[in-house]
Amino acid sequence: MIESIQLDKNSNKHLYIQLYRQIKGLIEGKAIKEHQKLPPIRRFSKVLEVNNVTVVNAYNLLEEEGLIYKKVGSGTFVSPFYKPEREGMGLDSEVYIDEDTKFSSKGKEEEINFATAAPTPDLFPIDPFKRLLNRVLDRDGGYAFGYQKSQGYLPLRESISNYIQGFGINVGPEEVQIVSGAQQGIDILAKTFLDYGDTVFVEKPTYPGAISVFKSRKAKIYELPIYGNGIDMELLEDKLKKEKPKFLYLMPNFQNPTGYSYSKEKKERLLEWANKYDLLIIEDDCLSDLNYGKEEASSLKSLDREGRVIYIKSFSKIFMPGLRLAFLIIPPRYYNDILLSKYMSDIFTDGLVQRVLDLYFREEVWEEQLKKLKMTYQGRYEEMISSLRTYMPKGVNFIEPKGGLNIWLNFPDNISIEKIYQKALAKRVNTAVGGLFYSGSSEDNKLRLTIAAVDKEDIRRGIKILAGVIKEEIGKEEGYKWDPSSMPLV
Amino acid sequence: MIESIQLDKNSNKHLYIQLYRQIKGLIEGKAIKEHQKLPPIRRFSKVLEVNNVTVVNAYNLLEEEGLIYKKVGSGTFVSPFYKPEREGMGLDSEVYIDEDTKFSSKGKEEEINFATAAPTPDLFPIDPFKRLLNRVLDRDGGYAFGYQKSQGYLPLRESISNYIQGFGINVGPEEVQIVSGAQQGIDILAKTFLDYGDTVFVEKPTYPGAISVFKSRKAKIYELPIYGNGIDMELLEDKLKKEKPKFLYLMPNFQNPTGYSYSKEKKERLLEWANKYDLLIIEDDCLSDLNYGKEEASSLKSLDREGRVIYIKSFSKIFMPGLRLAFLIIPPRYYNDILLSKYMSDIFTDGLVQRVLDLYFREEVWEEQLKKLKMTYQGRYEEMISSLRTYMPKGVNFIEPKGGLNIWLNFPDNISIEKIYQKALAKRVNTAVGGLFYSGSSEDNKLRLTIAAVDKEDIRRGIKILAGVIKEEIGKEEGYKWDPSSMPLV
Repeated sequence: MIESIQLDKNSNKHLYIQLYRQIKGLIEGKAIKEHQKLPPIRRFSKVLEVNNVTVVNAYNLLEEEGLIYKKVGSGTFVSPFYKPEREGMGLDSEVYIDEDTKFSSKGKEEEINFATAAPTPDLFPIDPFKRLLNRVLDRDGGYAFGYQKSQGYLPLRESISNYIQGFGINVGPEEVQIVSGAQQGIDILAKTFLDYGDTVFVEKPTYPGAISVFKSRKAKIYELPIYGNGIDMELLEDKLKKEKPKFLYLMPNFQNPTGYSYSKEKKERLLEWANKYDLLIIEDDCLSDLNYGKEEASSLKSLDREGRVIYIKSFSKIFMPGLRLAFLIIPPRYYNDILLSKYMSDIFTDGLVQRVLDLYFREEVWEEQLKKLKMTYQGRYEEMISSLRTYMPKGVNFIEPKGGLNIWLNFPDNISIEKIYQKALAKRVNTAVGGLFYSGSSEDNKLRLTIAAVDKEDIRRGIKILAGVIKEEIGKEEGYKWDPSSMPLV
Repeated sequence: MIESIQLDKNSNKHLYIQLYRQIKGLIEGKAIKEHQKLPPIRRFSKVLEVNNVTVVNAYNLLEEEGLIYKKVGSGTFVSPFYKPEREGMGLDSEVYIDEDTKFSSKGKEEEINFATAAPTPDLFPIDPFKRLLNRVLDRDGGYAFGYQKSQGYLPLRESISNYIQGFGINVGPEEVQIVSGAQQGIDILAKTFLDYGDTVFVEKPTYPGAISVFKSRKAKIYELPIYGNGIDMELLEDKLKKEKPKFLYLMPNFQNPTGYSYSKEKKERLLEWANKYDLLIIEDDCLSDLNYGKEEASSLKSLDREGRVIYIKSFSKIFMPGLRLAFLIIPPRYYNDILLSKYMSDIFTDGLVQRVLDLYFREEVWEEQLKKLKMTYQGRYEEMISSLRTYMPKGVNFIEPKGGLNIWLNFPDNISIEKIYQKALAKRVNTAVGGLFYSGSSEDNKLRLTIAAVDKEDIRRGIKILAGVIKEEIGKEEGYKWDPSSMPLV
């Protein structure tokens, strides 16, 4: 059927757009069927007498729309999930499906995604949001769309200052800096503090979005291993005696990717040393609201008496990621430098969304939403732990986190995680290989599982499939013997 | 009346919040009158037995709400513009007025602001925006709030690709990268291309937000003087023969701050040299839609055949600044590096706003809005030129821009612009001193006037006041003689 394709080189339409439209037509007309393989790029471009890039671009567009999928090492295939009848998004009666909608609730043949920490849209409070959005538009009109102050909308900063009092952090609105998401927060702090050749301490493993930013500022990154109760404190003190980093970046509660939390003792010692060694700590807290245990998940910031901690909190995981909203809490001596970095980054954060979030806090819709979210995630979390216990073979270990979205699996050293990842993916179970979360040499026997985008049923089914794949791989390792010393300390 | 203030050091309310509330009460109760001076910080903190910072913080909060204003060198005063009856924004029945609302249409006693390039909210298309926003929410629900692709929402990229065809730029959606405003675009490009010690060429003068970013990446900045028809091309070629900059950053149409445009000839020569010297050009185009002349304001990108130009276009000036939306057009060889920089900056741009803007383009509300905006600005522009001709004394010169929002005044060398600025500000006419727009040594005899936030009546009145101030200053310079060589070339 591919043979019917005809490109018009004299048309003012780009060749790849022509090609994309014709393939799309064939898929929609069922002339090419689900899971049918498309021609390899090189061969196809030869047949069509066009440049390779034309085919690559056309395939990319088709993939973006969910019409086709790629399978590493075997080629490009027609997707079974594409629903052309999705209406209202048309351009010239064409249909667009954004990446996010590709794996929505369309039935059980879909991918089970333990890789993404992005919550699914069914958890978003759309109705109250819409109501408040319209209220803001009626109330503020054009002012919601004008230039905003770089520090953020004052009423929202007041609301945030009230909100975080509930978490033991007592600061006024002047210490709150609004940013466009936690990633921007990290970028702004890197801009403020890091110059060529400066040193930064991070946890090992840690959030890769932070590593990229620090590397982009040409910082030297020193990784401190994290255990079930926090980073290696002896190593930290040893390093602090020799070198002064610009800051230490960490996630003390339900860390990403491990899910580990610092003990109260380690938190207190960290602050002690921050004072002693004049150390700045950047505390990234996106998940402490999702505490399923009985102990308090107290932040370092709430224990910080000397202004040693800059606190970052995102609303992506606990509200809606699309809003691009987070905030920093900043000790006064850094106000101006950080404000300038914010200005350089994007001048200010969307004023409309700031206003809606402000009402969201004031009307206490917030608490309701968080309660609902926490219940949902706790249910998934328990399902995950129980499934892991039921299905995982001996040799696969993990420390039960007390909250959050992530679970960190530890494998025997002689297992190839890459193979497990690929085989599970072929069975449509997606995971995140541990190597992603290291700056330098990575430990190749870890896997991160996340419960943000999977419901309970999928969790059990997915873990069963994953466990099957792992058993196969472990079985293959002849003479395999599990080494208990490969377990992290608690 | 200030004597009545009592702070309770045992309260759990911050001292500065207590102080702020009490002063606010006094202002609202008219116990302190308009324009009355507040106590100096040091003295006040002594009387209250608190830290200086407490008073500073309270004053800052009051200023943010428009309750008080500061006058350089003379102190802090009660504002005459504060309207406590503004409703619906209350917290504990308190009233917040954001900075943006301070100088809204509240009558003629207000500041005339020639300094800001931020358009006023009365020009924003709120009603169609609201309609489209609700349509997106009904259509896409939670998907509008999920994680988005870092490159941007595909339908919007398609819309933009269609839109810019009207400006002679023929690129597919894959060459479009959505960013959160032009400032972020500049920041992302700096992240992508600049390392410690790299060289960047810029216009002299240029946009200060770009200079800050380049300096933050530790780049060496080389400034090329701009004349009425573009930068000094001889100097450019001379420099290119000796040194390879990472890029040349410029605004070929209605430049900021000068309003100057490049001649067609210079544009073509720039591209010729870009090919010859393997030079990357970053073209920042925020105003070419506002062309009041008869000649086409063609972009460099529309003339670029070899992928030498990265194009940045913001929607802040011609749509609504609060949305934080702009786009880049990127030659394919830079796709991946720039995508990674975008990811590091804020992962992705707000999906809701991208969807609304997409419909905005598809429904062609866009053209209507631009037409209205252009008419308004052209009227202001003509009023500005005519007022300058009528009121400005000899010795003050300018080149008439053919579009945009900015006019660049050149003064005799021996005049103090700082004094003129201060005196005009005291008469509530705000301007931007030229020195802001230079990276290195600045020319201290320029002033930028912008028509974004002033109506025709204010323009005439403001220019009359400004001209009066200038005449006084020029008159003071004994033996003053105007030197025609201080005029820039055309």
